[in-house]
Amino acid sequence: MRKGRTFVVSGPSGVGKSTVLKALLESRKNLYFSVSATTRDPRPGELDGIHYHFMDVESFRKWIAMDQFLEYAEYVGNFYGTPKKFVDDAMEAGKDVILDIEIQGAIQVCSKRPDTVRIFIAPPSWAELERRLTERGTDSPEKIQKRLLRAKVEFQTAHTYDYFVINDTVENAVGELNAIITAEHCKPQERMEIISGR
Amino acid sequence: MRKGRTFVVSGPSGVGKSTVLKALLESRKNLYFSVSATTRDPRPGELDGIHYHFMDVESFRKWIAMDQFLEYAEYVGNFYGTPKKFVDDAMEAGKDVILDIEIQGAIQVCSKRPDTVRIFIAPPSWAELERRLTERGTDSPEKIQKRLLRAKVEFQTAHTYDYFVINDTVENAVGELNAIITAEHCKPQERMEIISGR
Repeated sequence: MRKGRTFVVSGPSGVGKSTVLKALLESRKNLYFSVSATTRDPRPGELDGIHYHFMDVESFRKWIAMDQFLEYAEYVGNFYGTPKKFVDDAMEAGKDVILDIEIQGAIQVCSKRPDTVRIFIAPPSWAELERRLTERGTDSPEKIQKRLLRAKVEFQTAHTYDYFVINDTVENAVGELNAIITAEHCKPQERMEIISGR
Repeated sequence: MRKGRTFVVSGPSGVGKSTVLKALLESRKNLYFSVSATTRDPRPGELDGIHYHFMDVESFRKWIAMDQFLEYAEYVGNFYGTPKKFVDDAMEAGKDVILDIEIQGAIQVCSKRPDTVRIFIAPPSWAELERRLTERGTDSPEKIQKRLLRAKVEFQTAHTYDYFVINDTVENAVGELNAIITAEHCKPQERMEIISGR
Protein backbone atom coordinates (compact mmCIF):
# COMPACT_ATOMS: atom_id res chain seq x y z
CA MET A 1 0.00 0.00 0.00
CA ARG A 2 1.18 3.49 -0.71
CA LYS A 3 2.46 5.55 2.19
CA GLY A 4 0.86 8.87 3.01
CA ARG A 5 2.65 12.18 2.82
CA THR A 6 3.06 15.01 5.28
CA PHE A 7 1.78 18.52 4.58
CA VAL A 8 2.68 21.42 6.82
CA VAL A 9 0.12 24.23 6.73
CA SER A 10 1.02 27.65 8.12
CA GLY A 11 -0.61 31.05 7.93
CA PRO A 12 -1.03 34.28 9.83
CA SER A 13 -3.49 34.72 12.67
CA GLY A 14 -6.90 35.67 11.29
CA VAL A 15 -6.41 34.21 7.83
CA GLY A 16 -9.10 31.59 8.48
CA LYS A 17 -6.82 28.56 8.54
CA SER A 18 -8.89 26.56 11.05
CA THR A 19 -12.08 26.99 9.02
CA VAL A 20 -10.30 25.97 5.81
CA LEU A 21 -8.66 22.91 7.39
CA LYS A 22 -11.95 21.81 8.93
CA ALA A 23 -13.62 22.02 5.51
CA LEU A 24 -10.67 20.18 3.94
CA LEU A 25 -11.00 17.31 6.42
CA GLU A 26 -14.71 17.05 5.62
CA SER A 27 -14.09 17.08 1.87
CA ARG A 28 -11.28 14.55 1.73
CA LYS A 29 -10.98 11.05 3.09
CA ASN A 30 -7.75 9.44 4.14
CA LEU A 31 -6.45 12.53 5.87
CA TYR A 32 -5.06 12.57 9.39
CA PHE A 33 -4.98 15.86 11.23
CA SER A 34 -2.00 15.77 13.59
CA VAL A 35 -2.87 16.45 17.23
CA SER A 36 -0.19 18.34 19.16
CA ALA A 37 1.18 17.35 22.53
CA THR A 38 1.27 19.98 25.27
CA THR A 39 2.21 20.36 28.90
CA ARG A 40 -0.43 23.00 29.58
CA ASP A 41 -3.54 22.05 31.56
CA PRO A 42 -6.66 21.06 29.63
CA ARG A 43 -9.27 23.83 29.39
CA PRO A 44 -12.91 23.00 30.09
CA GLY A 45 -14.24 20.81 27.26
CA GLU A 46 -10.81 19.90 25.87
CA LEU A 47 -10.33 16.17 25.42
CA ASP A 48 -7.06 14.26 25.60
CA GLY A 49 -6.12 12.88 22.18
CA ILE A 50 -8.69 15.05 20.40
CA HIS A 51 -7.68 18.65 21.08
CA TYR A 52 -4.23 17.85 22.47
CA HIS A 53 -2.22 15.00 23.85
CA PHE A 54 -1.82 16.27 27.40
CA MET A 55 1.53 15.39 29.00
CA ASP A 56 3.45 16.34 32.12
CA VAL A 57 6.68 18.32 31.76
CA GLU A 58 8.87 15.40 32.78
CA SER A 59 7.46 13.12 30.06
CA PHE A 60 7.70 15.91 27.51
CA ARG A 61 11.38 16.48 28.32
CA LYS A 62 12.00 12.74 28.08
CA TRP A 63 10.37 12.66 24.63
CA ILE A 64 12.57 15.59 23.55
CA ALA A 65 15.67 13.70 24.73
CA MET A 66 14.51 10.62 22.82
CA ASP A 67 13.91 12.69 19.65
CA GLN A 68 10.22 11.82 19.70
CA PHE A 69 9.04 15.17 18.31
CA LEU A 70 9.04 16.36 14.71
CA GLU A 71 9.09 19.87 16.17
CA TYR A 72 8.49 21.50 19.51
CA ALA A 73 8.53 24.92 21.13
CA GLU A 74 8.09 26.53 24.51
CA TYR A 75 5.43 29.21 24.63
CA VAL A 76 4.44 31.20 27.75
CA GLY A 77 5.93 28.56 30.03
CA ASN A 78 4.33 25.56 28.32
CA PHE A 79 5.68 23.06 25.83
CA TYR A 80 3.94 22.28 22.55
CA GLY A 81 5.12 19.66 20.07
CA THR A 82 4.27 17.28 17.23
CA PRO A 83 4.80 13.65 18.28
CA LYS A 84 6.50 11.60 15.57
CA LYS A 85 4.66 8.42 16.48
CA PHE A 86 1.13 9.44 15.51
CA VAL A 87 2.32 11.01 12.26
CA ASP A 88 4.30 7.90 11.32
CA ASP A 89 1.44 5.54 12.24
CA ALA A 90 -0.97 7.49 10.02
CA MET A 91 1.49 7.60 7.11
CA GLU A 92 2.18 3.86 7.40
CA ALA A 93 -1.60 3.33 7.25
CA GLY A 94 -1.59 5.19 3.91
CA LYS A 95 -3.05 8.43 5.26
CA ASP A 96 -1.85 11.89 4.38
CA VAL A 97 -1.00 13.96 7.41
CA ILE A 98 -1.78 17.63 7.94
CA LEU A 99 0.35 19.54 10.45
CA ASP A 100 -1.06 22.93 11.44
CA ILE A 101 2.09 24.67 12.70
CA GLU A 102 3.77 28.05 12.48
CA ILE A 103 6.86 28.88 10.44
CA GLN A 104 9.52 28.06 13.05
CA GLY A 105 7.97 24.64 13.62
CA ALA A 106 7.71 24.09 9.87
CA ILE A 107 11.45 24.73 9.53
CA GLN A 108 12.15 22.10 12.22
CA VAL A 109 9.90 19.52 10.54
CA CYS A 110 11.45 20.07 7.11
CA SER A 111 15.00 19.80 8.41
CA LYS A 112 14.06 16.35 9.78
CA ARG A 113 11.81 15.35 6.87
CA PRO A 114 12.85 17.15 3.67
CA ASP A 115 10.03 15.50 1.69
CA THR A 116 7.44 17.41 3.73
CA VAL A 117 5.25 19.66 1.58
CA ARG A 118 4.92 23.19 2.93
CA ILE A 119 1.76 25.17 2.24
CA PHE A 120 1.24 28.77 3.29
CA ILE A 121 -2.31 30.06 3.57
CA ALA A 122 -2.30 33.75 2.69
CA PRO A 123 -5.05 36.36 2.80
CA PRO A 124 -6.18 37.92 -0.50
CA SER A 125 -4.70 41.21 0.77
CA TRP A 126 -3.37 42.79 3.96
CA ALA A 127 -6.43 45.03 4.07
CA GLU A 128 -8.64 41.93 4.06
CA LEU A 129 -6.59 40.32 6.84
CA GLU A 130 -7.02 43.49 8.93
CA ARG A 131 -10.76 43.42 8.23
CA ARG A 132 -11.02 39.76 9.34
CA LEU A 133 -9.03 40.40 12.53
CA THR A 134 -11.24 43.41 13.32
CA GLU A 135 -14.44 41.49 12.57
CA ARG A 136 -13.35 38.64 14.84
CA GLY A 137 -13.64 41.16 17.68
CA THR A 138 -11.24 39.37 20.04
CA ASP A 139 -8.33 41.83 19.84
CA SER A 140 -7.80 45.50 20.59
CA PRO A 141 -6.83 47.78 17.69
CA GLU A 142 -3.23 47.82 19.02
CA LYS A 143 -3.13 44.03 19.17
CA ILE A 144 -4.51 43.82 15.63
CA GLN A 145 -1.75 46.14 14.37
CA LYS A 146 0.80 43.94 16.18
CA ARG A 147 -0.65 40.81 14.54
CA LEU A 148 -0.56 42.47 11.11
CA LEU A 149 3.05 43.52 11.55
CA ARG A 150 3.98 40.01 12.67
CA ALA A 151 2.13 38.53 9.68
CA LYS A 152 4.07 40.80 7.29
CA VAL A 153 7.40 39.89 8.90
CA GLU A 154 6.53 36.17 8.81
CA PHE A 155 5.54 36.52 5.20
CA GLN A 156 9.08 37.57 4.30
CA THR A 157 10.37 34.20 5.49
CA ALA A 158 7.55 32.28 3.84
CA HIS A 159 8.98 32.44 0.33
CA THR A 160 10.60 29.03 0.90
CA TYR A 161 7.14 27.43 1.12
CA ASP A 162 6.23 25.07 -1.73
CA TYR A 163 2.74 26.47 -2.28
CA PHE A 164 0.70 29.56 -1.49
CA VAL A 165 -3.02 29.07 -1.09
CA ILE A 166 -5.02 32.30 -1.16
CA ASN A 167 -7.99 32.14 1.21
CA ASP A 168 -10.36 34.41 -0.71
CA THR A 169 -13.23 31.98 -0.15
CA VAL A 170 -13.17 28.76 1.87
CA GLU A 171 -14.34 26.85 -1.20
CA ASN A 172 -11.45 28.09 -3.36
CA ALA A 173 -8.87 27.52 -0.63
CA VAL A 174 -10.10 23.95 -0.01
CA GLY A 175 -10.09 23.32 -3.76
CA GLU A 176 -6.46 24.43 -3.98
CA LEU A 177 -5.45 22.33 -0.96
CA ASN A 178 -7.14 19.26 -2.44
CA ALA A 179 -5.40 19.90 -5.78
CA ILE A 180 -2.00 20.23 -4.08
CA ILE A 181 -2.41 16.96 -2.16
CA THR A 182 -3.54 15.09 -5.29
CA ALA A 183 -0.77 16.62 -7.44
CA GLU A 184 1.91 15.71 -4.89
CA HIS A 185 0.87 12.06 -5.23
CA CYS A 186 1.59 12.31 -8.97
CA LYS A 187 5.25 13.20 -8.39
CA PRO A 188 7.65 10.60 -9.88
CA GLN A 189 9.03 9.45 -6.51
CA GLU A 190 5.44 8.69 -5.41
CA ARG A 191 4.80 6.53 -8.45
CA MET A 192 8.05 4.56 -8.45
CA GLU A 193 6.42 1.45 -7.02
CA ILE A 194 3.78 1.42 -9.73
CA ILE A 195 6.36 2.29 -12.37
CA SER A 196 8.93 -0.32 -11.41
CA GLY A 197 6.43 -2.97 -10.35
CA ARG A 198 5.28 -3.94 -13.80
CA MET B 1 -3.96 39.62 -15.31
CA ARG B 2 -2.11 36.44 -14.54
CA LYS B 3 -0.29 34.72 -17.37
CA GLY B 4 -1.08 31.14 -18.26
CA ARG B 5 1.38 28.30 -17.98
CA THR B 6 2.51 25.63 -20.40
CA PHE B 7 1.98 21.92 -19.74
CA VAL B 8 3.60 19.30 -21.93
CA VAL B 9 1.72 16.00 -21.96
CA SER B 10 3.41 12.86 -23.28
CA GLY B 11 2.55 9.20 -23.15
CA PRO B 12 2.92 5.95 -25.06
CA SER B 13 0.76 5.02 -28.02
CA GLY B 14 -2.40 3.34 -26.80
CA VAL B 15 -2.43 4.84 -23.31
CA GLY B 16 -5.58 6.82 -24.11
CA LYS B 17 -4.01 10.27 -24.07
CA SER B 18 -6.35 11.80 -26.68
CA THR B 19 -9.46 10.66 -24.81
CA VAL B 20 -8.10 12.01 -21.53
CA LEU B 21 -7.10 15.38 -23.03
CA LYS B 22 -10.47 15.75 -24.74
CA ALA B 23 -12.21 15.15 -21.40
CA LEU B 24 -9.81 17.58 -19.70
CA LEU B 25 -10.65 20.33 -22.20
CA GLU B 26 -14.36 19.75 -21.59
CA SER B 27 -13.93 19.84 -17.81
CA ARG B 28 -11.76 22.93 -17.55
CA LYS B 29 -12.18 26.42 -18.92
CA ASN B 30 -9.32 28.70 -19.82
CA LEU B 31 -7.28 25.97 -21.45
CA TYR B 32 -5.75 26.26 -24.91
CA PHE B 33 -4.86 23.08 -26.73
CA SER B 34 -1.85 23.83 -28.93
CA VAL B 35 -2.38 23.02 -32.62
CA SER B 36 0.74 21.78 -34.39
CA ALA B 37 2.02 23.07 -37.70
CA THR B 38 2.81 20.53 -40.42
CA THR B 39 3.99 20.40 -44.01
CA ARG B 40 2.02 17.26 -44.81
CA ASP B 41 -1.12 17.52 -46.93
CA PRO B 42 -4.48 17.77 -45.16
CA ARG B 43 -6.42 14.52 -45.05
CA PRO B 44 -10.12 14.54 -45.93
CA GLY B 45 -12.02 16.37 -43.21
CA GLU B 46 -8.96 18.00 -41.63
CA LEU B 47 -9.34 21.75 -41.16
CA ASP B 48 -6.54 24.31 -41.19
CA GLY B 49 -6.11 25.84 -37.74
CA ILE B 50 -8.22 23.14 -36.08
CA HIS B 51 -6.41 19.85 -36.71
CA TYR B 52 -3.16 21.39 -37.91
CA HIS B 53 -1.77 24.63 -39.18
CA PHE B 54 -0.90 23.51 -42.71
CA MET B 55 2.25 25.12 -44.14
CA ASP B 56 4.48 24.63 -47.17
CA VAL B 57 8.04 23.40 -46.65
CA GLU B 58 9.60 26.74 -47.56
CA SER B 59 7.60 28.62 -44.92
CA PHE B 60 8.31 25.93 -42.35
CA ARG B 61 12.08 26.19 -42.98
CA LYS B 62 11.85 30.00 -42.71
CA TRP B 63 10.08 29.66 -39.36
CA ILE B 64 12.80 27.27 -38.17
CA ALA B 65 15.47 29.80 -39.21
CA MET B 66 13.56 32.54 -37.34
CA ASP B 67 13.29 30.38 -34.21
CA GLN B 68 9.50 30.41 -34.44
CA PHE B 69 9.01 26.87 -33.10
CA LEU B 70 9.08 25.67 -29.51
CA GLU B 71 9.98 22.27 -30.95
CA TYR B 72 9.90 20.58 -34.32
CA ALA B 73 10.77 17.27 -35.92
CA GLU B 74 10.85 15.63 -39.31
CA TYR B 75 8.83 12.43 -39.55
CA VAL B 76 8.46 10.30 -42.69
CA GLY B 77 9.46 13.20 -44.90
CA ASN B 78 7.16 15.78 -43.31
CA PHE B 79 7.82 18.50 -40.75
CA TYR B 80 5.78 18.85 -37.58
CA GLY B 81 6.24 21.65 -35.06
CA THR B 82 4.75 23.75 -32.26
CA PRO B 83 4.54 27.42 -33.30
CA LYS B 84 5.60 29.77 -30.50
CA LYS B 85 3.16 32.49 -31.49
CA PHE B 86 -0.10 30.72 -30.71
CA VAL B 87 1.25 29.41 -27.40
CA ASP B 88 2.45 32.87 -26.39
CA ASP B 89 -0.80 34.57 -27.45
CA ALA B 90 -2.83 32.13 -25.35
CA MET B 91 -0.55 32.54 -22.33
CA GLU B 92 -0.69 36.34 -22.58
CA ALA B 93 -4.48 36.03 -22.63
CA GLY B 94 -4.23 34.19 -19.29
CA LYS B 95 -4.88 30.73 -20.69
CA ASP B 96 -3.01 27.59 -19.74
CA VAL B 97 -1.57 25.79 -22.73
CA ILE B 98 -1.50 22.03 -23.28
CA LEU B 99 1.11 20.64 -25.68
CA ASP B 100 0.52 17.04 -26.72
CA ILE B 101 4.04 16.03 -27.80
CA GLU B 102 6.39 13.10 -27.47
CA ILE B 103 9.48 12.94 -25.30
CA GLN B 104 12.03 14.36 -27.76
CA GLY B 105 9.79 17.35 -28.45
CA ALA B 106 9.24 17.81 -24.70
CA ILE B 107 13.01 18.00 -24.19
CA GLN B 108 13.25 20.74 -26.84
CA VAL B 109 10.41 22.76 -25.28
CA CYS B 110 11.87 22.51 -21.78
CA SER B 111 15.33 23.58 -22.91
CA LYS B 112 13.74 26.75 -24.34
CA ARG B 113 11.18 27.22 -21.56
CA PRO B 114 12.43 25.67 -18.30
CA ASP B 115 9.23 26.64 -16.46
CA THR B 116 7.22 24.23 -18.62
CA VAL B 117 5.48 21.54 -16.57
CA ARG B 118 6.00 18.03 -17.93
CA ILE B 119 3.31 15.41 -17.37
CA PHE B 120 3.63 11.78 -18.44
CA ILE B 121 0.47 9.75 -18.87
CA ALA B 122 1.23 6.15 -17.98
CA PRO B 123 -0.89 3.00 -18.21
CA PRO B 124 -1.80 1.21 -14.95
CA SER B 125 0.43 -1.67 -16.16
CA TRP B 126 2.21 -2.89 -19.26
CA ALA B 127 -0.28 -5.75 -19.53
CA GLU B 128 -3.11 -3.20 -19.62
CA LEU B 129 -1.33 -1.16 -22.32
CA GLU B 130 -0.95 -4.32 -24.40
CA ARG B 131 -4.64 -5.08 -23.86
CA ARG B 132 -5.64 -1.58 -25.02
CA LEU B 133 -3.41 -1.74 -28.11
CA THR B 134 -4.89 -5.14 -28.99
CA GLU B 135 -8.46 -3.96 -28.40
CA ARG B 136 -7.89 -0.93 -30.63
CA GLY B 137 -7.48 -3.43 -33.47
CA THR B 138 -5.42 -1.15 -35.72
CA ASP B 139 -2.06 -2.90 -35.37
CA SER B 140 -0.71 -6.38 -36.10
CA PRO B 141 0.60 -8.42 -33.11
CA GLU B 142 4.18 -7.66 -34.28
CA LYS B 143 3.46 -3.93 -34.44
CA ILE B 144 1.90 -4.07 -30.97
CA GLN B 145 5.03 -5.73 -29.57
CA LYS B 146 7.14 -3.02 -31.24
CA ARG B 147 4.97 -0.30 -29.69
CA LEU B 148 5.23 -1.94 -26.26
CA LEU B 149 9.01 -2.15 -26.52
CA ARG B 150 9.19 1.47 -27.61
CA ALA B 151 6.92 2.49 -24.72
CA LYS B 152 9.18 0.69 -22.22
CA VAL B 153 12.32 2.31 -23.67
CA GLU B 154 10.67 5.75 -23.63
CA PHE B 155 9.59 5.16 -20.08
CA GLN B 156 13.23 4.92 -18.99
CA THR B 157 13.82 8.49 -20.16
CA ALA B 158 10.56 9.75 -18.65
CA HIS B 159 11.85 9.88 -15.08
CA THR B 160 12.69 13.56 -15.59
CA TYR B 161 8.99 14.37 -15.98
CA ASP B 162 7.45 16.46 -13.19
CA TYR B 163 4.32 14.34 -12.81
CA PHE B 164 3.05 10.87 -13.67
CA VAL B 165 -0.67 10.53 -14.25
CA ILE B 166 -1.93 6.95 -14.26
CA ASN B 167 -4.73 6.47 -16.78
CA ASP B 168 -6.65 3.73 -14.97
CA THR B 169 -9.94 5.49 -15.67
CA VAL B 170 -10.47 8.66 -17.71
CA GLU B 171 -12.19 10.26 -14.72
CA ASN B 172 -9.20 9.65 -12.41
CA ALA B 173 -6.69 10.79 -15.01
CA VAL B 174 -8.62 14.00 -15.71
CA GLY B 175 -8.93 14.59 -11.95
CA GLU B 176 -5.18 14.31 -11.56
CA LEU B 177 -4.49 16.58 -14.54
CA ASN B 178 -6.87 19.20 -13.16
CA ALA B 179 -5.20 18.95 -9.74
CA ILE B 180 -1.72 19.38 -11.27
CA ILE B 181 -2.74 22.49 -13.23
CA THR B 182 -4.42 24.04 -10.16
CA ALA B 183 -1.48 23.15 -7.88
CA GLU B 184 1.05 24.63 -10.29
CA HIS B 185 -0.76 27.95 -10.02
CA CYS B 186 -0.19 27.85 -6.24
CA LYS B 187 3.61 27.81 -6.65
CA PRO B 188 5.29 30.85 -5.06
CA GLN B 189 6.54 32.30 -8.37
CA GLU B 190 2.94 32.26 -9.64
CA ARG B 191 1.69 34.22 -6.65
CA MET B 192 4.42 36.85 -6.51
CA GLU B 193 2.20 39.54 -8.01
CA ILE B 194 -0.51 38.95 -5.43
CA ILE B 195 2.09 38.66 -2.69
CA SER B 196 4.06 41.80 -3.54
CA GLY B 197 1.08 43.82 -4.72
CA ARG B 198 -0.36 44.54 -1.30
